[in-house]
Amino acid sequence: MSGQSAPQGTEGTDTGTDAVPGPGPRSVAAHQAAVAELLRHWFEAHPPAAETVPVAEAAGRVLAADVHAPGNLPPFTNSQMDGYAVRSADLAMPAGESAGESAAAGPGGPAAGSAAGIRLATAAHIPAGSAPPPLQPGTAAPVMTGAMLPEGADAVVPIEACDPDHFLPAGTAGSVQLPAGIPPGRFVRRAGSDIAAGALALSGGTVLGTLQLGLLAGLGLDRVAVRPRTRVLLLTTGDEVREPGQPLGPGQIHDANTTLLRSSLEAAGARVLRSRILADSPAEFLERLRADIAADAPDLVLTSGGISKGAYEVVRQALAAAEVRFLSVAMQPGGPQGIGTVDGVPFLGFPGNPVSSLVSFEMFLRPALAAVTGTPRPRVQVQARLTEPLQSPPGKHQIRRGRYCPDGTVVPVGGPGSHLMHALASSNALILVPVGTEKLPEGAEVTVLLVD
Amino acid sequence: MSGQSAPQGTEGTDTGTDAVPGPGPRSVAAHQAAVAELLRHWFEAHPPAAETVPVAEAAGRVLAADVHAPGNLPPFTNSQMDGYAVRSADLAMPAGESAGESAAAGPGGPAAGSAAGIRLATAAHIPAGSAPPPLQPGTAAPVMTGAMLPEGADAVVPIEACDPDHFLPAGTAGSVQLPAGIPPGRFVRRAGSDIAAGALALSGGTVLGTLQLGLLAGLGLDRVAVRPRTRVLLLTTGDEVREPGQPLGPGQIHDANTTLLRSSLEAAGARVLRSRILADSPAEFLERLRADIAADAPDLVLTSGGISKGAYEVVRQALAAAEVRFLSVAMQPGGPQGIGTVDGVPFLGFPGNPVSSLVSFEMFLRPALAAVTGTPRPRVQVQARLTEPLQSPPGKHQIRRGRYCPDGTVVPVGGPGSHLMHALASSNALILVPVGTEKLPEGAEVTVLLVD
Repeated sequence: MSGQSAPQGTEGTDTGTDAVPGPGPRSVAAHQAAVAELLRHWFEAHPPAAETVPVAEAAGRVLAADVHAPGNLPPFTNSQMDGYAVRSADLAMPAGESAGESAAAGPGGPAAGSAAGIRLATAAHIPAGSAPPPLQPGTAAPVMTGAMLPEGADAVVPIEACDPDHFLPAGTAGSVQLPAGIPPGRFVRRAGSDIAAGALALSGGTVLGTLQLGLLAGLGLDRVAVRPRTRVLLLTTGDEVREPGQPLGPGQIHDANTTLLRSSLEAAGARVLRSRILADSPAEFLERLRADIAADAPDLVLTSGGISKGAYEVVRQALAAAEVRFLSVAMQPGGPQGIGTVDGVPFLGFPGNPVSSLVSFEMFLRPALAAVTGTPRPRVQVQARLTEPLQSPPGKHQIRRGRYCPDGTVVPVGGPGSHLMHALASSNALILVPVGTEKLPEGAEVTVLLVD
Repeated sequence: MSGQSAPQGTEGTDTGTDAVPGPGPRSVAAHQAAVAELLRHWFEAHPPAAETVPVAEAAGRVLAADVHAPGNLPPFTNSQMDGYAVRSADLAMPAGESAGESAAAGPGGPAAGSAAGIRLATAAHIPAGSAPPPLQPGTAAPVMTGAMLPEGADAVVPIEACDPDHFLPAGTAGSVQLPAGIPPGRFVRRAGSDIAAGALALSGGTVLGTLQLGLLAGLGLDRVAVRPRTRVLLLTTGDEVREPGQPLGPGQIHDANTTLLRSSLEAAGARVLRSRILADSPAEFLERLRADIAADAPDLVLTSGGISKGAYEVVRQALAAAEVRFLSVAMQPGGPQGIGTVDGVPFLGFPGNPVSSLVSFEMFLRPALAAVTGTPRPRVQVQARLTEPLQSPPGKHQIRRGRYCPDGTVVPVGGPGSHLMHALASSNALILVPVGTEKLPEGAEVTVLLVD
């Protein structure tokens, strides 16, 4: 017996008060470091080749290398407003109102300056998507937001500040009254002011979310080189474990771990190559495992169940001769852990209780994937106030499930029991109660990880 | 001109200090309510039929109806520890040490009680996945975590508390010394204690994340009825707008909005049926739009660009005769907004600047989808301390981009300019500066929305 409800002998209890301490458990931080080191060592020895994918399919992927801007963004100097492109020198304050030079006369006729403004002849409209002719001195060209500024123009006057405050029909000759004292650069977006050609746009290792994909598209890129997904072989153990959809016999339970871990892995950017439920025969387990490793070439083997100190611990027994260590981490739930390599491939063994395996993923594997492969982004961690008191067993880093609320509080959901899937499904946060904290009053500040 | 850099005449300025106020802008809250009402009205008139999908493919989907537990979870009463299943009455305190009755004698021989414990005969091991025979009085059955408790047993003694503190080989007759004073129920998980058969497991409308999928699997469900994805027709406008991957002519820019909005919609659980870049011809725009509506039967038409007060506003001009209102919202960026119906289908017109369209999605469409269709989950909103002072234009709800840090601070990234895609791509948060707040000092607390 070593499946979904696998032995948790050293893992504490559902009540959190009767823990039987194991011999010298490893700290959470030490095991986190060990898991990250396991993956780092693997990927250093097996550096993954980049793959190129369409930007439209790159959400959640990790940039394989730095991306530099292939051109300026914006690509050309353009208007920030609907209005008139002007030469700011034409709109200097009239003599007597400022120390500025008087308005220059241009081919459109001498500009008439007054306290109410300066009148300029209107030039042709500037349509989007074209290169306008240079702006003649003494004229103002109707320009829409985003349209290219003509050569010679160095400022834009918004249409609302002009008289008339609407555009004349295209092709109409006329003039417009503009305010004086417009500084150069006003309402102008210079070419490259968002990002200049050749500048670093996104660093290698960046996780591509909506905002990063938008930048790549704006830069004109439709394909992008990303790191391959981490390839995972996912095994669940236990004679009593049945696939969802199958009827249960006496003493049997449905497999929740494959779903929990597959969904977690996929959401974290990894790819589950294969998942299996294996029976409690160590010989069969080892044979299947080695065949799957040879066939699938995974980056990681992940098991749940069968690693504790019970009488029937299939993973532990099957891997007794492998480079795998089975140990106790000072965490509750999720205390029993396996770590090492099988046929040279990184191996992690999580305990079999569903909550234990999910917490193990969140505390050990997800942070290691984030640190080593760049994906997923780390969970958001916030401080929250407990709505009720909590107790935690001595010597354990306890992880409770909770519901984080926008008002900055967190409601503990269910008890510490590692089989409580219904409470888990009502949670959106893991409440971290570190070693050394055994009692927390209502209102105490705790650190919570926000989970999906 | 009405594309990616579309007119923002009433939208304020890149400096945030020179805003030209529009006539009577609508509040952010009023427009949020209007967008939600638009979708609510549509879906009330067109209630979507549920579809059934495999649980393994249901991540991010919304439960169509309440799910009740088809059976108990756990399905049977089982052990919480590796240890011995016992009748607690057999381990009552010996006379003289407590008021409890003395240990009962059973067929395994009389139980010997002492201060050090009580010795019981061992019964057969209980293998996982089977129904054990009833536990005879005066005996203790080796049981592993998760294995079924035999009839008659009402408590489990962890192996660590027994003498010997390891299991004898299966089939070995013998006895074990157990501590006295074990209360009934100790280390027992009762059938249905996680969730009872028939009880509400998940409510209709729940977004299915990893934790909810795990519960469904644990309940034995491999398929689940979900609401269909919201069907969106996504249009971008502008003569100057080119698809990423295409070369740019003078005055042309690459389309970032389709990528930003498609990725946002997909991450929010919607399905983009079709996306197009349309040129600035109102007649062509309207013809294509109506043909696409007829062909695709969308739940929503979403456009970007062409809705402001410039001289060339294709969406505004094309829909002049439709049931669409173009208005100004007291928000910066994202002030110009279009809302209504086209051929009876909900229509939203976002402004064309990329940051404006993304902010419009986050402030209006995403919350409305969450409220009306149940997906996505609302963004996490946290309080954070500004690392530098901020200014906001009077009368506007300003939305700045920022980087939220685990220490509870938020670093404003880039300025308020709505064309700054590079700064947007460095952000993970939107900083909300409501109307009435014009200056915020360093260290001030602000509300931020955490975005991807």
